[in-house]
Amino acid sequence: MAARIKVLNTPSMRRMPSYLHKLMLMHAAGEKHASATKLAEYMDLDTIIVRKDFELTGIQGRPGVGYKTDELIDGIRRYLGWNITCEACLVGAGSLGSALLGHEEFMEYGLKITNVFDSDPAKVGSMIHGHLVEDVRKMTQVLKPAPPPLAILCVSPHCAQMVADELIECGVKAFWNFANVCLQVPPDIIVQREVIAGGFALLSVKLTQSGIK
Amino acid sequence: MAARIKVLNTPSMRRMPSYLHKLMLMHAAGEKHASATKLAEYMDLDTIIVRKDFELTGIQGRPGVGYKTDELIDGIRRYLGWNITCEACLVGAGSLGSALLGHEEFMEYGLKITNVFDSDPAKVGSMIHGHLVEDVRKMTQVLKPAPPPLAILCVSPHCAQMVADELIECGVKAFWNFANVCLQVPPDIIVQREVIAGGFALLSVKLTQSGIK
Repeated sequence: MAARIKVLNTPSMRRMPSYLHKLMLMHAAGEKHASATKLAEYMDLDTIIVRKDFELTGIQGRPGVGYKTDELIDGIRRYLGWNITCEACLVGAGSLGSALLGHEEFMEYGLKITNVFDSDPAKVGSMIHGHLVEDVRKMTQVLKPAPPPLAILCVSPHCAQMVADELIECGVKAFWNFANVCLQVPPDIIVQREVIAGGFALLSVKLTQSGIK
Repeated sequence: MAARIKVLNTPSMRRMPSYLHKLMLMHAAGEKHASATKLAEYMDLDTIIVRKDFELTGIQGRPGVGYKTDELIDGIRRYLGWNITCEACLVGAGSLGSALLGHEEFMEYGLKITNVFDSDPAKVGSMIHGHLVEDVRKMTQVLKPAPPPLAILCVSPHCAQMVADELIECGVKAFWNFANVCLQVPPDIIVQREVIAGGFALLSVKLTQSGIK
């Protein structure tokens, strides 16, 4: 198997969208500078961690003044590659898929959902948050001429692999996988798996450590 | 501010539910032993990482044989505190809340949702995945006599703080927060914030590094 791309600083990267969201609210409120201390308080982190995270973006703050809000926003967006639009299709318009389609911040991330597919005849042809739901049986026909690089998988675990195989055949290169299964894919295909229980694992350990449960 | 509980090995803990899910499938299929190599391949990780993760549980494998599947399942469940049931209420039965209510694995995690609240009159009184939706205006009245330790927040960002304040007043001690906002809470209250964009941040960096976008 070819070596996968190594991504370092995973927790730092996970925090970037939260900084960005807060910084955009601050920017909209006319705040020209942002201090690491204030952001650390908002995020409930040590200030040193926030400074280290921002170092990754290459943006420097000034002692006593902080970071320029707009510079830091640009720096985070560039670091994450969110300054470049990424087209994606979404497969599985159930409650999770619908929740994602209604997630207003996707445009902030440079994520543009071009097609939505589902197998349920009751959903096909309907609109969900402004997106037309198409029949999954027409997915290959629709996507193959110009496949988006990314697919967001919100299908049930038992059909996730089959859907992924079909999308790879269409030319899709990466998956944001919300189905509770590890996809088996060729080494040049990127998969980011979301495990809803991952956050609950952290929470549970905190609950146990603190004697709450 | 009082010191928050430090949780170490965050990425390891996030992986535990995926190991557990796979091990339970293997156990159900009658596989008495699980090798780190096989699990590493399934999870697309280095074997050394898998072994290190399992060290945290205190369960030891045997060279050439692997881990006893049932021992490892118990070890992970104890490590995560999932051997003890945790009761929770869920507030906000929109598409994300509904997706969580339909998440079949919650029982695996020892998570028991006792009450569901929403403000939408069209939803109050209806059943979602076997849970009766109650009026959020009756939340304090319903919960105060015997509050669950945990609340799962799936409300919109603009009312999340207000709902959290009310729940803390009821006696709730911890939040699994899906609203896109940092909650301001007293230091003895635990918050696990889920940022959907966190995973997309990792994915974006991988997409950029690999030249896909």
